[in-house]
Amino acid sequence: MTGPRPRPELQSLTPYHSSELAGGRIFLHANENPYPPPQHVVDEIFERMRRVDLNRYPDPTPGKLASLLGEYNDVDPSRVWIGDGSNEVLLQSCLAFGGPGRTALVFEPTYRMHYRQARMAGTAVEESKRTDEFDIDIDDAIATIEIGKPDVVFVCSPNNPTGTVTSLDDIRRIAAETRGLVVVDEAYFEFCGVSLVPFLDEHPNAMVVRTMSKAFRLANVRLGYGIASPDVLEQLSRVRMPYAQSSFTEIAATVALEHRDELLAAVPAIVAQREKIEDRLGELPDVEVYEGGANFVFFTHPEAARLVKDLAAKGIVIRDFTHLIAGALRVTAGTPDETDEFIETFVGLL
Amino acid sequence: MTGPRPRPELQSLTPYHSSELAGGRIFLHANENPYPPPQHVVDEIFERMRRVDLNRYPDPTPGKLASLLGEYNDVDPSRVWIGDGSNEVLLQSCLAFGGPGRTALVFEPTYRMHYRQARMAGTAVEESKRTDEFDIDIDDAIATIEIGKPDVVFVCSPNNPTGTVTSLDDIRRIAAETRGLVVVDEAYFEFCGVSLVPFLDEHPNAMVVRTMSKAFRLANVRLGYGIASPDVLEQLSRVRMPYAQSSFTEIAATVALEHRDELLAAVPAIVAQREKIEDRLGELPDVEVYEGGANFVFFTHPEAARLVKDLAAKGIVIRDFTHLIAGALRVTAGTPDETDEFIETFVGLL
Repeated sequence: MTGPRPRPELQSLTPYHSSELAGGRIFLHANENPYPPPQHVVDEIFERMRRVDLNRYPDPTPGKLASLLGEYNDVDPSRVWIGDGSNEVLLQSCLAFGGPGRTALVFEPTYRMHYRQARMAGTAVEESKRTDEFDIDIDDAIATIEIGKPDVVFVCSPNNPTGTVTSLDDIRRIAAETRGLVVVDEAYFEFCGVSLVPFLDEHPNAMVVRTMSKAFRLANVRLGYGIASPDVLEQLSRVRMPYAQSSFTEIAATVALEHRDELLAAVPAIVAQREKIEDRLGELPDVEVYEGGANFVFFTHPEAARLVKDLAAKGIVIRDFTHLIAGALRVTAGTPDETDEFIETFVGLL
Repeated sequence: MTGPRPRPELQSLTPYHSSELAGGRIFLHANENPYPPPQHVVDEIFERMRRVDLNRYPDPTPGKLASLLGEYNDVDPSRVWIGDGSNEVLLQSCLAFGGPGRTALVFEPTYRMHYRQARMAGTAVEESKRTDEFDIDIDDAIATIEIGKPDVVFVCSPNNPTGTVTSLDDIRRIAAETRGLVVVDEAYFEFCGVSLVPFLDEHPNAMVVRTMSKAFRLANVRLGYGIASPDVLEQLSRVRMPYAQSSFTEIAATVALEHRDELLAAVPAIVAQREKIEDRLGELPDVEVYEGGANFVFFTHPEAARLVKDLAAKGIVIRDFTHLIAGALRVTAGTPDETDEFIETFVGLL
């Protein structure tokens, strides 16, 4: 006997892998926030959790959380879609608007999960290349959209892994020129402040996707959300699971939003570390730095593969993108100490 | 301007709704376990959670949890697939083995998410009817499989909402007769003890799906898992998200498995309440009870819709299935007090 018939079109979709972490001491590979939430915030999360009956299903429509997310983004809570990490929201957008016989457009190099989520949902993917500086070439993008008429267009801004911020003018032009769903992945929004959210009313075919994993320091909690028109959310509701988020996820995100000024207060410090990395690496021979708007720095060096291994041997884990772009590496802006140790070690390895 | 083009084939897939809970006092609608985990287990969960940095992503491959799940099920941990609730595992099985141009077979009436998950993934669904007693008619099932050659076959046993236990002989015959993936949803396994797991080596095209929401008292935690051959798991890995489970989910499930004898000790008491409901309702005029193997009772009464409303008015929430089957209701076996109050109230409403 043999296993069941695998889906042929998925066979090229190999499992997603992050960096090797064994022996790591300083983790600058996953664009995590280096600062845990303050102890009193953690205490409040657990205090509220103690009132939850773990044997009962969580609230399928957590109103308080939607209300706080609405308040934070200055939109009506009815426009907020809550997911189990932004990855769930992204997959749902592909299930609802992509799928068999449909096409998604991605601007590569970008967050690889967009391509994967589209493919998982049975969507054909058209990959359009960014410029040498990793910008979206807007005229080329519009031409591609006019010809291919994609059903879903992914714009990641700031873009992962390159950090590139796409201008609102360009994003709005893309949204205006397509009848597909434009998914604007703003996972790193808080580090640059550029968002389509204030313009969503003019673009009912756009959805902004966010996460609380980065600026809100809650990567462990798995809370993502989307903001979109009622038409878009109605379609997402067709592909939703019952009881997607645990009360832990809901409560942690709620408490974090209640203390958002305090949690987001670390953002300028992280941006300062990013700028320090950009400046210091930019002075080094053979290093090309791409300035970005997120909490990480994308750069190239001819010996990238060796450097990432040598850094790992010293306990510093950064992310290797040489499989995607020649010599490409990505390093997360950590605490001042972590960032300094990375820079000094990196310089010593050249 | 208008919203993006919705996917036409999803328009018949209306959002999933559970029962109306407002004003509820006794909740017997969602097949939850009426007993929260013991306080010392909850304490241990939170104690371990305090050591987690919430700003860091959870372990993408929680080895300790896989190891305990393997031990509990007497299988190698490499055969265990961990998901964010069994619903995620079920959706992944549709994404990996169903999808465009493929067909899933479901035996209705059954857990409606199987149909929905198949459709979400773009899979065509063939619905085969159960007998009047809600058994799978095995000869008819085999004939349907031979003709339709489904890519995914869902067998829910004990079946939700009818409680019906399908014999292992029948499940094994289905697995032997199809080249598709046979997904055996054993969410309620612990209440009947009948499982395909010991026979999985003989059926490399079958996957058993379980949840810790029921017997393990952790509905809030969203931990489901699958057990299958390496070939099946390799395909699932292609449609997996990075970092699917929070550390809370992982730790809560781990601690529960470490205390599994204590947690599962309530199972016989719950089964006794189910049997009491079956016996008492079975004596009533116009009530037809379908004896089952889960933690709930499926029954019919000509005035079902009125009864569910009248019960709700008295704070007792049960589940209305009259949209699916004439006069059908489902009630969860609660604590002895909850169960007695339900029975007495129900009798008084006739």
